[in-house]
Amino acid sequence: MRKLRIVVVNTLIHPGDEHDASLQLQAQRGNALRIGLLESGYDIIASLPADLYLPERIAQLQPDMIIVDAESDARDVLEHIVIATRDERRPIVLFTEDGATDSIDAAMAAGVSAYIVAGLHAERIAPVLNVALARFRQEAKLRAELDDTRHKLAERKVIERAKGLLMTHHGLSEDQAYQRLRSMAMNKKLRLAEIAQRIIDVEDLLGG
Amino acid sequence: MRKLRIVVVNTLIHPGDEHDASLQLQAQRGNALRIGLLESGYDIIASLPADLYLPERIAQLQPDMIIVDAESDARDVLEHIVIATRDERRPIVLFTEDGATDSIDAAMAAGVSAYIVAGLHAERIAPVLNVALARFRQEAKLRAELDDTRHKLAERKVIERAKGLLMTHHGLSEDQAYQRLRSMAMNKKLRLAEIAQRIIDVEDLLGG
Repeated sequence: MRKLRIVVVNTLIHPGDEHDASLQLQAQRGNALRIGLLESGYDIIASLPADLYLPERIAQLQPDMIIVDAESDARDVLEHIVIATRDERRPIVLFTEDGATDSIDAAMAAGVSAYIVAGLHAERIAPVLNVALARFRQEAKLRAELDDTRHKLAERKVIERAKGLLMTHHGLSEDQAYQRLRSMAMNKKLRLAEIAQRIIDVEDLLGG
Repeated sequence: MRKLRIVVVNTLIHPGDEHDASLQLQAQRGNALRIGLLESGYDIIASLPADLYLPERIAQLQPDMIIVDAESDARDVLEHIVIATRDERRPIVLFTEDGATDSIDAAMAAGVSAYIVAGLHAERIAPVLNVALARFRQEAKLRAELDDTRHKLAERKVIERAKGLLMTHHGLSEDQAYQRLRSMAMNKKLRLAEIAQRIIDVEDLLGG
């Protein structure tokens, strides 16, 4: 199996903050996480701060997974990641010290695949990431199903409305109206919903 | 906050197997998990084997969460749990030694809220269960949205078909057909989709 290509997102340590004790602790934990990932055979293709350039970098790097190492400011970091993956969802694993219920709820709503509070032993990294991947695929399936059903519902509304217009204004039966729509779509090489939308647009212009 | 009411599901140890070393180890781990739960302030309302009576017991007990302690036979146990919660989903947390990718995939597809491979320190139990609860709520929301959209699509199909029948057979415009459906529904105190289904049934009987 190909190595999983991972982008690690870490807290940005500003110059002058290097001597802050809690930031030093955080940096140590971040290093331990990186070592654990490398020892478990993952490929860290980049380690990036959570700043404004993150969305662009993720789009360029196309990682298989994003691991966020955010001990205390999980929510700020998460906001950047959500923007970065809005158009193309990716598995996101969040390591944090922040176990507050509303932080967890916000992360789940944002689409985090795994939320791991407190440290993790190196030997448990691989199973946790495997679970996160499976979780991501399962949720992606559910979301795709929802998108598809919504799309069908929207298309159906458009098609039925166009059919109704043809029936009312041209004295066609339901079946005739449907056949008319179908042959128009075939002639124009358009999808049924597209031709239906055109009919509705024209009727709207003419004042229906 | 009210204590979380938990049902723990464990592997059934048959009489005669008491001296099996791996089963003894498993029993030890199960005890450690229970102690961790109790020390973290959870309420274990029952500890049950994964047998045929499990669905009935869960329906009776109505736990807030089901924790499955299945070191090696995760899939067999999971099958029972899935049956037990099919009609009324509940958060399911699975502790297992089985880190195989297809076992994980199967568990996710079955709706497991957390899949924890290998042991867990007592101090990490509470955050893990909180994440599992948040995950369950998030997924429940997504599923509810999917159910709702599917239902709307199905209802729309029925209503549009009934409208088409009224338009074709009674020479009504789309708007007239819709108004007719609405007033029929109001008179009969039925939902629009219900009255539409009756119209379709009658037309089918009469050979529409």
